[in-house]
Amino acid sequence: MELNCPVPISRYNKVVLGHGGGGKLSGDLIEGLMIKELGNDMLNVLHDGAIFESAGKLAFSTDSFVVNPIFFPGGDIGELAVYGTVNDISCCGATPLYLSLSLIIEEGLPMDDLRKIIVSVRNAAKISGVKIITGDTKVVEKGKGDKIFINTSGVGSVISGVTVSPDSCKPGDMILLNGYIGDHGIAIISSREGIQFETTVESDCAPLNTLVADICNICPSVRVFRDPTRGGVASALNEISKASGYGIRIFEREIPVRDEVRGACEILGFDPLYVANEGKLIVIVPGEDADRVLEVMKKNPGGGDSAIIGEVTGDKTGVRMETVIGSSRIVDMISGEQLPRIC
Amino acid sequence: MELNCPVPISRYNKVVLGHGGGGKLSGDLIEGLMIKELGNDMLNVLHDGAIFESAGKLAFSTDSFVVNPIFFPGGDIGELAVYGTVNDISCCGATPLYLSLSLIIEEGLPMDDLRKIIVSVRNAAKISGVKIITGDTKVVEKGKGDKIFINTSGVGSVISGVTVSPDSCKPGDMILLNGYIGDHGIAIISSREGIQFETTVESDCAPLNTLVADICNICPSVRVFRDPTRGGVASALNEISKASGYGIRIFEREIPVRDEVRGACEILGFDPLYVANEGKLIVIVPGEDADRVLEVMKKNPGGGDSAIIGEVTGDKTGVRMETVIGSSRIVDMISGEQLPRIC
Repeated sequence: MELNCPVPISRYNKVVLGHGGGGKLSGDLIEGLMIKELGNDMLNVLHDGAIFESAGKLAFSTDSFVVNPIFFPGGDIGELAVYGTVNDISCCGATPLYLSLSLIIEEGLPMDDLRKIIVSVRNAAKISGVKIITGDTKVVEKGKGDKIFINTSGVGSVISGVTVSPDSCKPGDMILLNGYIGDHGIAIISSREGIQFETTVESDCAPLNTLVADICNICPSVRVFRDPTRGGVASALNEISKASGYGIRIFEREIPVRDEVRGACEILGFDPLYVANEGKLIVIVPGEDADRVLEVMKKNPGGGDSAIIGEVTGDKTGVRMETVIGSSRIVDMISGEQLPRIC
Repeated sequence: MELNCPVPISRYNKVVLGHGGGGKLSGDLIEGLMIKELGNDMLNVLHDGAIFESAGKLAFSTDSFVVNPIFFPGGDIGELAVYGTVNDISCCGATPLYLSLSLIIEEGLPMDDLRKIIVSVRNAAKISGVKIITGDTKVVEKGKGDKIFINTSGVGSVISGVTVSPDSCKPGDMILLNGYIGDHGIAIISSREGIQFETTVESDCAPLNTLVADICNICPSVRVFRDPTRGGVASALNEISKASGYGIRIFEREIPVRDEVRGACEILGFDPLYVANEGKLIVIVPGEDADRVLEVMKKNPGGGDSAIIGEVTGDKTGVRMETVIGSSRIVDMISGEQLPRIC
């Protein structure tokens, strides 16, 4: 046991098995770090669960985050875990309200790293307007985990009058995207493999709740929200096409890709359409609403680079892309794993 | 790739990284196993989250399960993960309704093991009357996890008129327990360390929802429900004593402990009061209700061996136990970790 931990969360500067044992050490960690940083009137009860008042339709979502490395340009696993579930709930056409936070920590994780991650969780929760109201901490032996895995689950209130579903698309609907794709995936792999580019690509990790709220406000008949994380834009569009039974046509020239991301993808043999994002939003709206929705998206801080990237078609040919050179190609679902542990 | 998987979930007999990649292989696993075994009208939507109708007070809880081994006498990690969250929600005085299921799988897990676990999840959900409505699957590289970790989060509807909270105890309240303690912890360690006893101790892993419902039905003024998992009965009682500010006195002769568990504890140097359970319930009720509640508990299949084990006292001396030899001793909170990865 060393005593040089800058803040005496406990007297430990690394997480030990006892921090997950349900006894005094666990209590120490919960009170000295979790409650201190995340505490609110609902979390502080320290019950087996939290109680909240509800009414109407709720959205419920879960995600476990195993990203490697846990700190990367533009974010860390704590922020990612909050925004990931905030965005899944938002994509149900709902306002995220409450999150749970469950940690699986590998014995030996520096306490300072854990503190940084919890502070990130706090800040991300504040930015997205959600409360962490219940949690759990487990510790596994060294070599039986990988630094830290985080599960967040959450509930949100479905926005009145909005019913989004991938099978609600119709031919003539337009497909919008809120900005540059592939930044998150390329930031992670650059950081993991030590690849240097002229400018650092940062993760686009960001919450989508205000963007979703703005869109629902002017277009309650919005058909689909989808955040293209693992599998990228291509996989998300394939899922939508499959669920709706209609074709999707996208235009390569309209899809925002940074030069650095395009360059990195060329070197790595990736296609930006398949690279993971966390802060990107695919929106499908009736054709007549597309221009209005685009305008509103562009005014939101999370949508300055929004574009109409395609349309739903009456054919059954899956997802096709009109390329910049004028040809058309099938954009299939990714088969296996392009880039593991991206989220 | 081998082809001897008895049921072609996919053509894989082990989980590979691509099963968590968000592409075709992921889809294969989700449709061929998750939806097949767990499917219901709400899960099948395959959206980013699930939608449900709500009204009134809801309880929300989360737990990650890292138990080792994943199969043990009397249960497995799948069953444990369902009952664990069902019980946390029940202990909020609520009826569990919906669960999320999030898996972190180590590459190489036999597909048959995963199938067994998912079937256990399905059966446990059916027994406890909950629906799995949203989920997530991640796969990490071999050596970066340990077979499988499972997070379940859940929501339940708080039973009308019931408000349980550890700080609501008052002197004169009586403390009840629904049966033998320590079975789960001893089952796990016996299985892990290959310790043989004359009779196999099986985990007490079981859902508490009907027991909680029965108690709330005849005693809506119930003060506390608590399931003594990590840290055992001793830690749970210490938490309650601390939250309420009152003392707790328990009677060793009233606390049900099986001979095999007592024997194993003697060999291992454990105290049964600190050994983990999953299927045990501490109940605190006003003194005048104790006998009625005991009677109802004994009639429930999960409460045949229920007993009144102690009382809340007006002093501030924490938790004390009157021993079988007539002395009295302090029962403190456990310090670190008696037995890691018990749940």
